[in-house]
Amino acid sequence: METYELVVIGSGPAGEKAAVRAAYYGHRVALVEKAATLGGAAVLTGTLPSKTLKETAVYFSGTYDTGLYGVDRHLKHATSIEDFMYRKNYVTASEAEAVQENLRRHGVDMYHGVASFEDTHTIRVSGPQECLLRSDYIIIASGSYPHHPANIPFDGKRVHDSDTILELTRFPNSLCIVGAGVIGCEYTTIFSTMGIKVYLVNDKDKILPFVDLDISRELIAHMKRSGVDIVFNSGVESLEVPQQETELLRVYLKNGETVEADMFLFAAGRSGTIKALQCDKIGLKTGRRGIIEVNERYCTTIENIYAVGDVIGFPSLASTGMDQARVAIAHIFQTRDLAHLPTHLPYGIYTVPEVSMVGISEEEAIRTNLSYGLGKARYADTARGKIMGAETGFLKLVFNWEDLVIRGVHIIGNIASEIIHYGIELVEEKKTLYDVIGRVFNYPSLHELYKLAAYDGLANRFINEAQFQQLALSFKKLKDTELLR
Amino acid sequence: METYELVVIGSGPAGEKAAVRAAYYGHRVALVEKAATLGGAAVLTGTLPSKTLKETAVYFSGTYDTGLYGVDRHLKHATSIEDFMYRKNYVTASEAEAVQENLRRHGVDMYHGVASFEDTHTIRVSGPQECLLRSDYIIIASGSYPHHPANIPFDGKRVHDSDTILELTRFPNSLCIVGAGVIGCEYTTIFSTMGIKVYLVNDKDKILPFVDLDISRELIAHMKRSGVDIVFNSGVESLEVPQQETELLRVYLKNGETVEADMFLFAAGRSGTIKALQCDKIGLKTGRRGIIEVNERYCTTIENIYAVGDVIGFPSLASTGMDQARVAIAHIFQTRDLAHLPTHLPYGIYTVPEVSMVGISEEEAIRTNLSYGLGKARYADTARGKIMGAETGFLKLVFNWEDLVIRGVHIIGNIASEIIHYGIELVEEKKTLYDVIGRVFNYPSLHELYKLAAYDGLANRFINEAQFQQLALSFKKLKDTELLR
Repeated sequence: METYELVVIGSGPAGEKAAVRAAYYGHRVALVEKAATLGGAAVLTGTLPSKTLKETAVYFSGTYDTGLYGVDRHLKHATSIEDFMYRKNYVTASEAEAVQENLRRHGVDMYHGVASFEDTHTIRVSGPQECLLRSDYIIIASGSYPHHPANIPFDGKRVHDSDTILELTRFPNSLCIVGAGVIGCEYTTIFSTMGIKVYLVNDKDKILPFVDLDISRELIAHMKRSGVDIVFNSGVESLEVPQQETELLRVYLKNGETVEADMFLFAAGRSGTIKALQCDKIGLKTGRRGIIEVNERYCTTIENIYAVGDVIGFPSLASTGMDQARVAIAHIFQTRDLAHLPTHLPYGIYTVPEVSMVGISEEEAIRTNLSYGLGKARYADTARGKIMGAETGFLKLVFNWEDLVIRGVHIIGNIASEIIHYGIELVEEKKTLYDVIGRVFNYPSLHELYKLAAYDGLANRFINEAQFQQLALSFKKLKDTELLR
Repeated sequence: METYELVVIGSGPAGEKAAVRAAYYGHRVALVEKAATLGGAAVLTGTLPSKTLKETAVYFSGTYDTGLYGVDRHLKHATSIEDFMYRKNYVTASEAEAVQENLRRHGVDMYHGVASFEDTHTIRVSGPQECLLRSDYIIIASGSYPHHPANIPFDGKRVHDSDTILELTRFPNSLCIVGAGVIGCEYTTIFSTMGIKVYLVNDKDKILPFVDLDISRELIAHMKRSGVDIVFNSGVESLEVPQQETELLRVYLKNGETVEADMFLFAAGRSGTIKALQCDKIGLKTGRRGIIEVNERYCTTIENIYAVGDVIGFPSLASTGMDQARVAIAHIFQTRDLAHLPTHLPYGIYTVPEVSMVGISEEEAIRTNLSYGLGKARYADTARGKIMGAETGFLKLVFNWEDLVIRGVHIIGNIASEIIHYGIELVEEKKTLYDVIGRVFNYPSLHELYKLAAYDGLANRFINEAQFQQLALSFKKLKDTELLR
């Protein structure tokens, strides 16, 4: 029986990162992967493929260029499904190869097969390479898979989950999507950007419930403008698939309504991939939908077993999964980089327009009784926004009422997932509104949004106190100054 | 005679900013502008129009999407000159109006006419509103105009300067541009992106001499790939304009070569707009090509007279002009924001691809005998770069050899002028390479370039010291890890 210091289960971003970091610090590491291709959801079905499709949709539709030019270029191209899928396939193949090469170069031992627990220190690998692995520590990074409710007749042709939607062989004429989390919202905007009629069915009264409410409302407004029909507070009762492909699917909702659409995508939740692991055999506690419970060090209820990535649930992003792996390795092997671990992680949601955030939302500020202020700036008010012809998009700052320290940054709009990084520094380094207005920004650039929002925040801050009204007026003027520059 | 605390000459970004800030702090301010439209070069001829044209060129050509998709979209559009100019005209009009509104709202007194010095405290305004203005302080922000050498027969039809090139009524079939500074390089890449043959004539052996040499070389390589012919170390001897518009211009160079082109653009320098001011009347010292000499507070040789913006020469960017105005006002009126003045200004150059930088270049490090190290990362190595199909572009960090503090960031590539802002914080806050690798970046995002470059820098740093070679190898591996993620 081979013995290791660490066995990692799963080769997605979290698992790969965990294995490679442990190997980097000189530890003896094995990784078990059941799929023939490495990379997990990030490479094969989730992160990269959907982001690539998004860029393709934006490109072909000219969405960010609406109203920009004398000519109207709106989806005049005879876009074929092959064009649409071409880049996705290229990026996927290139990244999967890269993961393999990375593990190999770091000397991580690879086992292809299905992992299960024999005891808390022993993993059985089943498959062509049947064997037992003994290890001091085990990290579960087995990921998640689309949840399949019994009342949905998935067929991978017209009734899809978020895996099979990536294997389309023709465009839907219309699409009913269930679920308004990250995946549901990303696909809603990707397909509506392509000019396809989308119905979004959602069991809550808002979409993307963890993002700032203003941002979520703006995304709803944008979806509606692109012709998306949103049904709130409802779910699917049943789904009727006619024999003829020319006839529409009939989606019967719990609220009594019926939606007719060419295709259907179920994106309401994923389940942790834990069945094969046999967690109960070792008494490892798991939650609803196969989510493994962990503490702040990503340790499970068993002290030598950790879990990271999608298998521990929210937020299920590649970037956070990789960081969880880093934290887990830091605690397991007491690496020296604990001091450098960041306290604020960005969220990047690749809808059209993009959404990105760091730090606390306005709702969190309210919930925690924080005395807070707000500053906002619209893309359309910056010179770069005007050049782009930006009609939507804004940046919102949440700051401490007393000391003006910036606590949260929330952005919706083109390249929001890039622009947020400046905001991460602000939140991480406890910068104030004054620090922001003291900086010089390129002109024209979208980063001027930060300066405009800071001026707006100062004006809002002081308008509410009678003795400061003159000051508030001055900041309002100064904001206009920046705004007009 | 009206009396003021401050009279500002010129309504470009620097002048407007100076006037508005002084008014904001409660001072009595007048502004004199000789043109009918406010906004100066930023609005009318320089910053915004050329940036808008650039975005238009990129959009119509699909430059950043080369190789991205199954279909080739390279300039299949029947782009008309009206399409090309449409947005430029819109943005310009909207911004000029905004400047007027901003000055009005701040209560700045406007005088339309030509300003000249009567004495060191008195300005004569000539024109429809003839009058004298007495002021404690005077700020010259009169800007610059294209230099016109005697041997170039400018006609605004086929032989252009950087003002008249914005009024084209047809596309050139080919274009000879003289001067490889910011303006010359921006127009070279704008027109070559549109598929127009460009010849760039340059009196030095490199282009954009103030940017990092690696960046400048990459831009040259990119220009050559887009079919630009560059002539180094030469200038124009004479220019022959045939009677027939169907015949090509003949540009005779000093090195004996002849360039034949449909149109000609002279972009080798601008002169300070000072003739009307009659500086000699008050003994105000001016330099070559009408550049006004100032100290670090932007004060001229006369203690109550300041100068900011293009009229003081390099770098002649809107963003730096506005900051110079801020510094000057801070010193004149002893405003309380001096502590918040930044020490590092970004440069944004809107070529295709964009160039942006902050802090010191490698050449400056060498010149000042700094013990330094380098870290680099290519766009094509990031997942977002792969999605975009990025073929060019990189980020380069210059850091202190001993303490690993980042001293300079240099970027060439798509949205470089946005991505630099994260780097401004790094340089301004004296962050180290370790600080960067401790951060979480959105995945996929171009900001991952910072992390890759930091790992590369650490590997380079330690490979050169024998005892650290193992450490260097580790950092190289870790870079690959990030690179492959």
